[in-house]
Amino acid sequence: MTDKDARTPASVQDAQSEEAGKSIGWHKAYVEGTRPDLRVPVRQVHLTNGQAVTLYDTSGPYTDPLVDTDVRRGLQPLRENWIIARGDTEEYAGRPVRPEDDGIKHTSPRGGLRNLDAVFPGRPRQPRRSRDGEAVTQLAYARRGEITPEMEYVAIRENVSPEVVRDEIAAGRAVLPANVNHPEIEPMIIGKRFLVKVNANIGNSAVTSSIEEEVEKMTWATRWGADTVMDLSTGRNIHTTREWVLRNSPVPIGTVPLYQALEKVDGRAEDLTWEVYKDTVIEQAEQGVDYMTVHAGVRLAYVPLTANRKTGIVSRGGSIMAAWCLAHHRESFLYENFEELCEILAAYDVTYSLGDGLRPGSIADANDEAQFAELRTLGELNRIAKRFNVQTMIEGPGHVPMHKIKENIDLQQEICDEAPFYTLGPLTTDVAPAYDHITSGIGAAMIAWWGTAMLCYVTPKEHLGLPNRDDVKTGVITYKIAAHAADIAKGHPGAQEWDDALSDARFEFRWEDQFNLALDPDTAREFHDETLPAGPAKTAHFCSMCGPKFCSMKISQDIRREHGGTRTEIEEGMAQKSKEFAASGNRVYLPIAD
Amino acid sequence: MTDKDARTPASVQDAQSEEAGKSIGWHKAYVEGTRPDLRVPVRQVHLTNGQAVTLYDTSGPYTDPLVDTDVRRGLQPLRENWIIARGDTEEYAGRPVRPEDDGIKHTSPRGGLRNLDAVFPGRPRQPRRSRDGEAVTQLAYARRGEITPEMEYVAIRENVSPEVVRDEIAAGRAVLPANVNHPEIEPMIIGKRFLVKVNANIGNSAVTSSIEEEVEKMTWATRWGADTVMDLSTGRNIHTTREWVLRNSPVPIGTVPLYQALEKVDGRAEDLTWEVYKDTVIEQAEQGVDYMTVHAGVRLAYVPLTANRKTGIVSRGGSIMAAWCLAHHRESFLYENFEELCEILAAYDVTYSLGDGLRPGSIADANDEAQFAELRTLGELNRIAKRFNVQTMIEGPGHVPMHKIKENIDLQQEICDEAPFYTLGPLTTDVAPAYDHITSGIGAAMIAWWGTAMLCYVTPKEHLGLPNRDDVKTGVITYKIAAHAADIAKGHPGAQEWDDALSDARFEFRWEDQFNLALDPDTAREFHDETLPAGPAKTAHFCSMCGPKFCSMKISQDIRREHGGTRTEIEEGMAQKSKEFAASGNRVYLPIAD
Repeated sequence: MTDKDARTPASVQDAQSEEAGKSIGWHKAYVEGTRPDLRVPVRQVHLTNGQAVTLYDTSGPYTDPLVDTDVRRGLQPLRENWIIARGDTEEYAGRPVRPEDDGIKHTSPRGGLRNLDAVFPGRPRQPRRSRDGEAVTQLAYARRGEITPEMEYVAIRENVSPEVVRDEIAAGRAVLPANVNHPEIEPMIIGKRFLVKVNANIGNSAVTSSIEEEVEKMTWATRWGADTVMDLSTGRNIHTTREWVLRNSPVPIGTVPLYQALEKVDGRAEDLTWEVYKDTVIEQAEQGVDYMTVHAGVRLAYVPLTANRKTGIVSRGGSIMAAWCLAHHRESFLYENFEELCEILAAYDVTYSLGDGLRPGSIADANDEAQFAELRTLGELNRIAKRFNVQTMIEGPGHVPMHKIKENIDLQQEICDEAPFYTLGPLTTDVAPAYDHITSGIGAAMIAWWGTAMLCYVTPKEHLGLPNRDDVKTGVITYKIAAHAADIAKGHPGAQEWDDALSDARFEFRWEDQFNLALDPDTAREFHDETLPAGPAKTAHFCSMCGPKFCSMKISQDIRREHGGTRTEIEEGMAQKSKEFAASGNRVYLPIAD
Repeated sequence: MTDKDARTPASVQDAQSEEAGKSIGWHKAYVEGTRPDLRVPVRQVHLTNGQAVTLYDTSGPYTDPLVDTDVRRGLQPLRENWIIARGDTEEYAGRPVRPEDDGIKHTSPRGGLRNLDAVFPGRPRQPRRSRDGEAVTQLAYARRGEITPEMEYVAIRENVSPEVVRDEIAAGRAVLPANVNHPEIEPMIIGKRFLVKVNANIGNSAVTSSIEEEVEKMTWATRWGADTVMDLSTGRNIHTTREWVLRNSPVPIGTVPLYQALEKVDGRAEDLTWEVYKDTVIEQAEQGVDYMTVHAGVRLAYVPLTANRKTGIVSRGGSIMAAWCLAHHRESFLYENFEELCEILAAYDVTYSLGDGLRPGSIADANDEAQFAELRTLGELNRIAKRFNVQTMIEGPGHVPMHKIKENIDLQQEICDEAPFYTLGPLTTDVAPAYDHITSGIGAAMIAWWGTAMLCYVTPKEHLGLPNRDDVKTGVITYKIAAHAADIAKGHPGAQEWDDALSDARFEFRWEDQFNLALDPDTAREFHDETLPAGPAKTAHFCSMCGPKFCSMKISQDIRREHGGTRTEIEEGMAQKSKEFAASGNRVYLPIAD
């Protein structure tokens, strides 16, 4: 974890070393805003025909050879001056970190963290929160008509005006998750008016995986395009793992505070209290978590609605809250204390991700009474959150067959006043464990086309185990495909330019350009080289599928070359020939009798 | 290739050896029809709770341990007696096989086939064709009101009445591809009223691969669920490769005769003639090819419509015909001789797959004038084919962004009188070479939901190279997901039962059942074992994702167990508690003020 090169993806280095010799490939570039400290990163792909294509980049400073990164130090606090300059927050001592935050018992004979060097060694920092009475959320600023540097940043990223960004946030149709304690992030926006975003989940569990692995999964996921990362750790070292992840993450980090709260009460749902939960939320807000999943919509009265379901409650948070409600025969403490929770989140500009604890876990349970009852409550909570200036998005399912997907987004948009929808998949069939990135990628593309703002990825390991590095990559790539397919279908300005550039390269046999423009250049190049590895094959005007005699692209090019370059020229040439032909019998255009 | 075990997929053997010891897994079973020689294979999954789930099976005799298969002998001619009993066909000497059929020149100093033992050694056979004046296609029989054994067979497979099968074929809304010279196939049907089918492409090329590989790819593809296989070989040994594939294939085989015809004229499109093409069609029909892609819709006048396209003509067949038309400045010989071609296909019951030679090769070119001009011609040709009693399906694109997909199927159904649509993908974005099984799986699921009858798979190697064994499997599995998701969305009777059985197993922690019901049991089991390999973990009531304390499924089960099994019981229990609670202050159901 100390060596930058060990974490920098191979293709970046490849591209840059190749670049030195052949001036092809891609490099990190920046688009400057109205102030010198506002530089928006982009991925610039240099084509062999001299053109360049600029792509959205989520990979952070790790792909910039001019930035010296070190995971032990953490990333530069890009937004720190912006936050301080606003003058509406203040540092304070903060809640003391306790061994229990990492799941370590006082009575434990072998106290201490699992990893010898686990405590984050970066510069000491104090948490920050709003000064009394100040509204410090991007929503509050937008409502006041202000355009923050964060808004300008995302406007450049999205290629829209800062006013559009501000207005979408003000209307609650978009969120810009940016905790005042997470100054390291490169701001991004989630809303249907903008590019569809992808979240990747990481997190250790009680059973397996370590801090190092989680930090690496985070940088790896953003390398391939994850726009946000959720740390869903449930085992030991939750606090410390999160610290490492936050200090090194260029993207917003989300969590489910309930998971850590449950660890603090030894996994017994019935022992959970509002006090333990609240303490955990503050702990995480002080660390800089940008958005939190809160399952406040799982109300006591809805639990029986799940009794006849095929797969009951499959959301972990949902089942914990249901168990608590039933154990105490009481309304959910999250629902009852929601206003106080709003006050806490508002103080740090933590964004709500209102969890769908009753989402269907099988297509048989899709769109049922339990699911939609909870959705109506989420609509109610969304309106409360807005009163407190808390940015809010709404989580959605899950497992939904294709013909029932549209109802989900339509109802959510109606009930939740167009708040951003953030869906897990949905999976369109239950029969393909080990391929649920695909069963869900299908549903994700569709629901994003129809208006979902962010997609939570699903990896091949869903339902089977914890994703490893390869699974994370496969999940992210699959979901970037779904998101981009939706951007195109929505007619997002500029989305199709990427496809067009790649198709041009394909038609003109510019293989290197095709690879460099690919969502995954490494694998595209590797697959090509499997059958035609030689250097000249990369400039060959054919490929291994058809060989030189058969290539349709080559024939198309020959047609164009031999018969004039444009349609008009070809038509003129043909019209002449056609005349000659008509004189000799005109058989060609005689239609076959039907 | 001589050893059955070498080709039988591992999981079949595993299931059976495990079965012996633990009586779990799945086995091949047969559903009997109205005659003893009509036995429809199914895959029967035995669950640990004593139930069984019956699934559609495409894998042929290879997965039946009681059948002794040998690729050197070929499969048993299941349909032979049915064909002979109809008395409307006759054997004849057939066209002599020439060295050129395998791409071998008379002048070649090293004549002979590449593979020493390449000539198929099975029993000698003579080709068969219709007796003079007899209409021997399934379409002709259906129109006369006859229910053939083939129709009864697919009715059992599809769980519908034979009358439905007959009527859909008679109306031209479905095809049952079954050349009289391919008696080895297990009949299947393609039509929107039935389960969505998947085709897998195999085939050597001028550049790489061998006969053995292609036969193995065929058995491998059907093992994972391919309903038909297209042999798109373009290099040497085309005739012989096809003979091996046909004699060993339990599923219908499709080809593009133009590819072999082009080989016969040394790859020079302009040297193609109707005579060479016709000779090739007869050669392939005598061998038993069940359906043929014919690019008769690429008319001279349409070629200029492609001039301003981003990627021109990407169909190999389409580009060959376009080159021919332009070289001679003549109408396509396929279009001009289409009626004679119908007569030939009718004599063998070869089904047309009218090729979309002008399909878009990039999303920029989707739904353009060239594409739809050709589609209208395919509609015209479809009506001609029906006059000759030739079964016909229509091929579709290609590369189409999501918002333009529906227009494709709607127009095709309207223009082609509801003839089955057979689409390649479509790919919903161009930016992900190496993942085009996914970019296209998204489009495939959607277009199948809306009415496409068969999906042509796309492998991860699309645009990059020839698929290997793993790519074939990934392509087939991805497309089975798309097809099954569409079956569910269409409300196909019984489709969701499979999902429900797997979801029940998931909820009840019946891990072995979950694996055995999975589309790919091997990979599901492997992924699970990566994190929790021990035997007991397969019966554990949790998994590696959350560990024992956190499992939502377990919590749901606990809720159900502790609070009564059904919704009513839980509600009654809760009502009682609620009364008690109301007496003590009734705070629970008090809504939060909004």
